[in-house]
Formats: sequence, C-alpha cells, structure tokens
Amino acid sequence: MNGAQSLVRTLVGCGVDTCFMNPGTSEMHLVATLDAVPELHGYLTLFEGVATGAADGYGRMAGRPAASLLHLGPGLGNGLANLHNARRARTPIVNLVGDHATYHKKFDAPLESDIEGPARMVSPGFVRWGSTPATLGADAAEAVRAAVGPPGQVATLVVPADVSWGPGGVVAPPPPRPAPPGVDTARVEAAAAALRSGERAALLLGNAALGPAALAAASAAAGASGAALYAETFPARVARGAGIAPVDRLPYFGEMVVDTLAGVRHLVLADAKAPVSFFAYPDKPSWLVPDDCQVHVLAGPTDDVPATLEALAAELGTRPAAAVVAPPSRPEAPEGELNPRAVAAALGSLLPEGAIVSDEGNTSSLFAASMTAGCPPHDWLYLTGGAIGQGLPVAVGAAVACPDRKVVSLEADGSAMYTLQSWWTMARYGLDVTTVLFNNRSYAILQVELQRVGTEGAAERAHEMLDLTRPDIDFCGLARALGLSTWRATTASEFHSHLAAALATPGPSLVEAVF
Amino acid sequence: MNGAQSLVRTLVGCGVDTCFMNPGTSEMHLVATLDAVPELHGYLTLFEGVATGAADGYGRMAGRPAASLLHLGPGLGNGLANLHNARRARTPIVNLVGDHATYHKKFDAPLESDIEGPARMVSPGFVRWGSTPATLGADAAEAVRAAVGPPGQVATLVVPADVSWGPGGVVAPPPPRPAPPGVDTARVEAAAAALRSGERAALLLGNAALGPAALAAASAAAGASGAALYAETFPARVARGAGIAPVDRLPYFGEMVVDTLAGVRHLVLADAKAPVSFFAYPDKPSWLVPDDCQVHVLAGPTDDVPATLEALAAELGTRPAAAVVAPPSRPEAPEGELNPRAVAAALGSLLPEGAIVSDEGNTSSLFAASMTAGCPPHDWLYLTGGAIGQGLPVAVGAAVACPDRKVVSLEADGSAMYTLQSWWTMARYGLDVTTVLFNNRSYAILQVELQRVGTEGAAERAHEMLDLTRPDIDFCGLARALGLSTWRATTASEFHSHLAAALATPGPSLVEAVF
Repeated sequence: MNGAQSLVRTLVGCGVDTCFMNPGTSEMHLVATLDAVPELHGYLTLFEGVATGAADGYGRMAGRPAASLLHLGPGLGNGLANLHNARRARTPIVNLVGDHATYHKKFDAPLESDIEGPARMVSPGFVRWGSTPATLGADAAEAVRAAVGPPGQVATLVVPADVSWGPGGVVAPPPPRPAPPGVDTARVEAAAAALRSGERAALLLGNAALGPAALAAASAAAGASGAALYAETFPARVARGAGIAPVDRLPYFGEMVVDTLAGVRHLVLADAKAPVSFFAYPDKPSWLVPDDCQVHVLAGPTDDVPATLEALAAELGTRPAAAVVAPPSRPEAPEGELNPRAVAAALGSLLPEGAIVSDEGNTSSLFAASMTAGCPPHDWLYLTGGAIGQGLPVAVGAAVACPDRKVVSLEADGSAMYTLQSWWTMARYGLDVTTVLFNNRSYAILQVELQRVGTEGAAERAHEMLDLTRPDIDFCGLARALGLSTWRATTASEFHSHLAAALATPGPSLVEAVF
Repeated sequence: MNGAQSLVRTLVGCGVDTCFMNPGTSEMHLVATLDAVPELHGYLTLFEGVATGAADGYGRMAGRPAASLLHLGPGLGNGLANLHNARRARTPIVNLVGDHATYHKKFDAPLESDIEGPARMVSPGFVRWGSTPATLGADAAEAVRAAVGPPGQVATLVVPADVSWGPGGVVAPPPPRPAPPGVDTARVEAAAAALRSGERAALLLGNAALGPAALAAASAAAGASGAALYAETFPARVARGAGIAPVDRLPYFGEMVVDTLAGVRHLVLADAKAPVSFFAYPDKPSWLVPDDCQVHVLAGPTDDVPATLEALAAELGTRPAAAVVAPPSRPEAPEGELNPRAVAAALGSLLPEGAIVSDEGNTSSLFAASMTAGCPPHDWLYLTGGAIGQGLPVAVGAAVACPDRKVVSLEADGSAMYTLQSWWTMARYGLDVTTVLFNNRSYAILQVELQRVGTEGAAERAHEMLDLTRPDIDFCGLARALGLSTWRATTASEFHSHLAAALATPGPSLVEAVF
C-alpha cells in the first residue's frame, strides 16, 4: 500500500469519506486512490475556493469533517478565503495540500513556494508535513483528531508527492473520541445570578447554542429571568422555523448594536464572543459592550453547550418545554415591485420543510430572516468570516452532506462572482440547490460603507469602483452556461412563480431577481 | 492630506499610476483618492486573482509597476496564486493590502487574520506595515524601490485603515534610481572561453535576455561559437517574429530536456536558471543538466543582460547584426478538422503586428509558437509560476499597459475557469483582447501527468476528476454574459474566419475552438 492509500483508508476509517478537490500533478496518487478505495467520494470543483467552501458547508451540516485537496501553495492560496470563513465557523475540515516530492523542493521549481505561512493563516492550530509513507496514516488520524476538536478547526496536512507514492503505507486507527464535554456548574450559577439580579441582562448565543434544543433551553431561561435573547451576527448555523425558539441576531452595524445593548448590565455568553464592530470607523466604537456591563462566560466551544443551557434553565426554575417557539406562518405571495422584501416574502411563502439556506445575500437578504420565521423547520448558514464568495460553495457542501434536503443559496451579485464556478459542480453532481441571485448591479454594502467611513471627497470615480453595471452581468446566462436551469424575474409575482418552479425542479437551478 | 492621499500621490510621483483593485470597507479611503488624485487610474476587477494577474501583465509590458489593492487577509489569499506567478516572472508590483485600523485588530473581528504569512509567500523580500499617516508616503516610496529592484519583485505594503484616514500625510519623493547595472567582464570571458572550448555548449536565455537586442546578441554569439541557443521553458516575456532572432524554449517534460541537452558540456546562463523538472516523478530526474556539464553564470537579474550578451558577442568576434533572424512567413489558412494545430495555423495566418500573446493554452498551444515564428514582430507572455488562472488576467494588464496593441489570450478551458471574471473587466474598459478558448473538455495536461507519475490502478473514478464534461461548459455563453462578442468554431475554416472577425472587432471578444 502506498502512502496515499494509507492516508485515504485512514480518513475513511475516521468517518471522513468526502473530498472536494482541485488536484494537480503532485496530488495524482491521491486522486488514484478513488479507484483503490471506493468508500471515498470525490467531488471535482473548478476552483479551489469552491472546494474549501464546500468542505465548510459539508462540515456545518454533517457535523463531521470533509477533506479538501489542493495543489501546492498557489492552490492553497486560492482556497484561503473560504478556509478563513471555515475557521470563523469552527468547521472541522481536513485540508490536504499536495507538495513537491521532498527531494525536489531544493530545486526551486516554478510551483515551489512557502506553504506554511498561508497554511498558518487558516490553520493556526494544526499544520503538519507528512514525512514518510509509513507515518502518513498516523498523520491523517492526527489531522482528523485536530479537525474535530472540540473546538472544530481547519487542520492542514501537507503531503509531499513522494510520501504519497512511496510504499509501506500503514492505515492508522481512528483517534480516540474526545472526552465528552461537560457543564461547568459554577459558571451556570454565576450566570443565573446575573440573569436574576434584577438588572437588565442579555443572553448572547453563538455556534453550538443555536440548535433546536439549545435554543429551547435558552429561550426558557430568558423567559424565566426576563433577559433579552440574541444570537451573534454571523453564526455558522441556526435552526429556525415553526416550533423552534426564535432568536434575533445582533445587527451588523455597530451603532445599532450599541442601541440594542444600551442599559444591559449583564451579558451572558453561550458559545458566543462579546460583540465588536465588524470594521473600524472614525469616531465609532470597536468594542460594543456597554461600559458598565459585566460579561459572563457561561459556556465556550469545549463545553456541552446545550446541556449547559438546560442547566441554566433548571437553575432558573424552568425547563426547555417552557420556551416560546415560533408559530407556523407564511407571508402572502408578494405582488408589485420586485425588491428584497418581495424576494423575502416569496421565499417565506415557499420555503420547503427541511430546507438549508446558505445566506450570502448581504444587504439584499435583510428581510429574509423575518419573512421565513414561521416556515417549516429549516437551517440557516451565514457568512461567518466576512470573506465573500462563501455562499455558493457552502451550498455545494450542504447539498452533498444532506442529499434529501433542498438547499437555497441567497446570493448577492458581487459575492456570486467570486466563486460562480460552484454552479458547474452543482450541475455535475445534480445537487438540489436553488440559487436566488439578487442582482442590484452594485457592491451595495460598499456604497453604504463608503459613507460610513467618512470618505469626504469621494465622488464619481470612487463610486465607479462599487458599481457592477457597464456591462450588466447576465447571471442567467452564466448559470445556464454552467448547466443550470434558470429563470429571470423583474416583478414580484414573476419572482414568486419562478421560485416555485425552481424549487419544484430537482437539481440545480437559479432564479435571478433583477432590482 | 490624509495618509491614503499621501500614499497615492507618492505612488503617482514614482510613476505608479495604475491600480487594479477589489476594495472593501478597510480600503475605502484609498478608493476615495481616485477623486482627489485624478492622475491615478483605477480598474475594478470582480475577483482579486484578476487584480494581481493584471498587475503582473501590466508590469511585464510597461516595465514599471502597477499597484494591486486587496481587502485584508482573505483578499490577499485570493490574489496569491497570480502574485506567485508574478514573483516567478520577477514582475515589479506594488501590492497594497488594506488592514483593520491598528487599534481594532485586538478585537479579533470576523475578517481579522494573519497577513504576514501569506504575504511572505509571494513577497519574501518586502512586506511592510504602514504605521502612521506621516510615514505612509515614505513607505510607499520604499515599496516602489523594492518592487523595481533590480530584480523586480512583488512588494507588499499593508495599510491599516486608520493610517489611511488619519491626517498628516506627507508625500515622499521618488526613490533614487537604482545604480545602472553593469557588465561583468570576467564572466563574459569565462563564458566565451567555454563556448569556444570545442566541447558541446549551449546558451540558455531567461527574462531580460529575451528582448530583441539581447536575442540578436545571443544569436550572434551562438552562431559564432557553434553553441546551441535555448530559452527557459516559461519565461515572462519573449520578443518574437520576423526580423527577430528566434529561440526555442526548453521542453516542459524533463526527459525531453535531458534529450535536448545530452552531450552538452558547458551550459551558459543569461538571466536564466539551470533547468529542473517542473514536477518530481518516480524514477525520473529532477536536475536536468547532464552530469558532466559545467554551468557558467554569464549574467543574472542585477546585471545589464543585453549589454552582457553584446559583450559576449564581441568577445567571440561577432556582433548583433550577425544574428540569424526569423524570415517573414505565415502559414496557410487551415482547413479540415479543428485541432490545436489548425488553431495555431489560423493564429499564424492572422496575428497582427505588435500583438501581445498571453499564453495559457497549456497542451493546446503547443503548436502556436512554431506557426507564428514568422509573423510580424510581437511579444509572447508565458505562465511563469505554474499557477493556472494567469492568462486572462495577464491579458487584462497587458491591454491596459499597451492600449494601442492587440492582445490575444490563448486559454485552456480548465485554466480559463479559474479567473473568468477577467472578461467582465475587459468589457468594462473596452480592452482590445481576443480570447482564443481551447475547449477540449478536460484537464488534458493532467491526463498526461496521471500516466507520467505512474499511478497504477487509476481508472474511471480518478479520470472523472480530470474531465470537464457533464456538463460541457458553454464558454461563449459565459463570455457573452460578461459583455464580450463571441464566436464558436468546430471546423478549421470556421475558426479561421471567426478569428479574423474577432481580431477585426475592436474591444474584447472570444473565439471558442471546440475540439
């Protein structure tokens, strides 16, 4: 058995059987394992950012890592932005980067470059070089252990070509399961005391606090104590819909967070970070917690967050069954002008049960959450790290992880252009993804930001850099050329009927909403 | 004057007046300088890899740096692959990376990441952080000095948002011109002695040895001494065509290089590196110079390479006028089956004088060089660092640098998909670029490499990862959706007439050759 086969057999034994890839010559022995190890499922992408974003979407939905397979330093470079988003989501990913043969590196061939520097950017906790075929299986098992955590992370394993092709590979056993996370009673009591203090309090939920059970416990605890309940602005995954306890996300703009939290004296964090401004702005605060507010860490990523929230509810004399949950409701089908609100209403009127929404609509999807609050239960995935070009790849990975669920990808025009290659991968594998493309012909968020950062004197030439006209992009044309069924809407009722048709069509489709 | 304005005014004063950009919030003050400093020309790209590749193409053709403007660590990540290619081309680039405000970094906002690690990958010689508005101008001047060299390099200047927006910017004077490079007489004499030794010898030319004057001198020297004349496999830019001394590039496959150099006892390097295999392969050599061959460095990137070659010619008793130059000739218009040879013949029969060819045709452009050898003088730009997705962005930059010249972008299907966003930038700015798209529906080079690396057992599932069918990509559809005029050809004569039409149409166009 060569090193590559021992690596892949080890991964499969650890439950990592899905690999999103853009391979090159140095990874050919890993590619060849697809025939030797039929348990491995390979998905070809046409750009590395699609592979890494798909691994992120897969990990968020499957709860176990996928692998990404990238070609040397430049391939890793192309994958970095979505690995950055995955790092922020704490998604487990086994990130395989092929390298030149060990003896070849000193010749400084054209593709030779530093790999460690860019790898550390997204994998600060685990970058390892395979050194021999005999130890590559063990390296793979260690990479899985690191990726799974907790907390989940991107674990990068660099695989030199001769370590792949050399004989003597040994399959390593799966790593021991991590010790079961626990509940820190002292922190539960401290948090309960804060929530009961009579002073204004808020409970802020992040990653693991946003599943249905955790949300029910958090809602009950908030209800029993009178605390406000919020989620982080860009969580990795939120359970939503009828029968699930709803939670508002903190707003994107820092000054709105300040308003939201005004008067709060106790902020209790459940797997969340205290809020900070997304960007810095002249004369606006970066730290958004009120000055006289005490921050209490109830649970972090290595705790059993749902159990901790249930313990908190119990400490407050209530239980998850007391949660206030969203009632079933759907908005009316929209009519009249097509705008983001109409798109949201159409989505709310049609979103199927069990849908997975990958949301990179940016300014255009502001209304989508409220209009879908009472839809049948579904999951919502956010842009965690701010690096645009995440939404379509994450939709790819979510669809691979959950082939029986409909995936809806809410995409802004500017963001879609970063990783539009995703559509081809959706088409090749018949993934059940409907892209809703918000075509407002601009980087609308940057139009806002240009004002907010106080750039006096910015005029026509600056605004040209935020404008996506001249030429207008024909998104239906792009998606059709990559194998999707497409519809284009310019009125609300047109959009509604097109979305209904797209959702009823198995496989990948796109509905372009032209504003 | 704020820091951003002092930076941009300094750049303009240094001759850096062109910036390819994908800005975000942290770069808005730099964007705003477009209105304050009208001498700066900004070009919007829809993906950072286009911006950095365009800066590479611009630098190769203009001989002076453009700037690239990227958004934080993830934006730099997206730009790394083409900065890697630029590093290999030794193209001067001032690479500006916006960062969070200095005081904001400690809050670990979503887009916060390491920047230095990925920056060092492509800018090992110069990564600097702007620290105050008052010194940012001087930082910019230093970045220009570093970028220009010699040797040229990617100089990365990280610009925190508050250093951009803060007052007190000071425009710095341009750096002193570098000392004029010289001729090392001892090395000229040693090289001449080697070439005259009577033993088999070869002269290998790289970057600065591939302009018309250097080629003439090299050709004369080779002719006078009986030495063979070669160019590196993937040089940054080669002058070619009727009246210019032709030079064959060393082949891509290592074993063919070994055959080519068999028996050579003296290898004289003129701004070239001794040949090594692009990748490592089991049981094939990495170092391609014959064992008993002596390597002589005639000139490196800090020398006056053309003058050194002229001195070599003089030492050998000849002069550039004695060069053997390519006679004018064009192939017949092709007929019959459409294949890479027919595409090359059509190109050879039509290539206009002064054309710039950006060649990322990979396997499909193998015949293009020989079929255009006698065309009117033109320049040819190669994929220097092996990171695909370079060709279209380099064409963008070349067209911006040389608005009066026709640019032809030879693109393989797999490579085109990496940075197809380039077509939109060509359309927005009306760039005179004709893309020739080789659609063979596969990563053909990898099909070859899969065999060459000896992956026994690779079968159907492995080959699927190298196949671009299911669905076939409609490249005309993609390019049309991004604003290009397009033609599709399935026969040789169809291709010839479509290429003629495209070349006669000002502005961006695409001709898809379906094999």
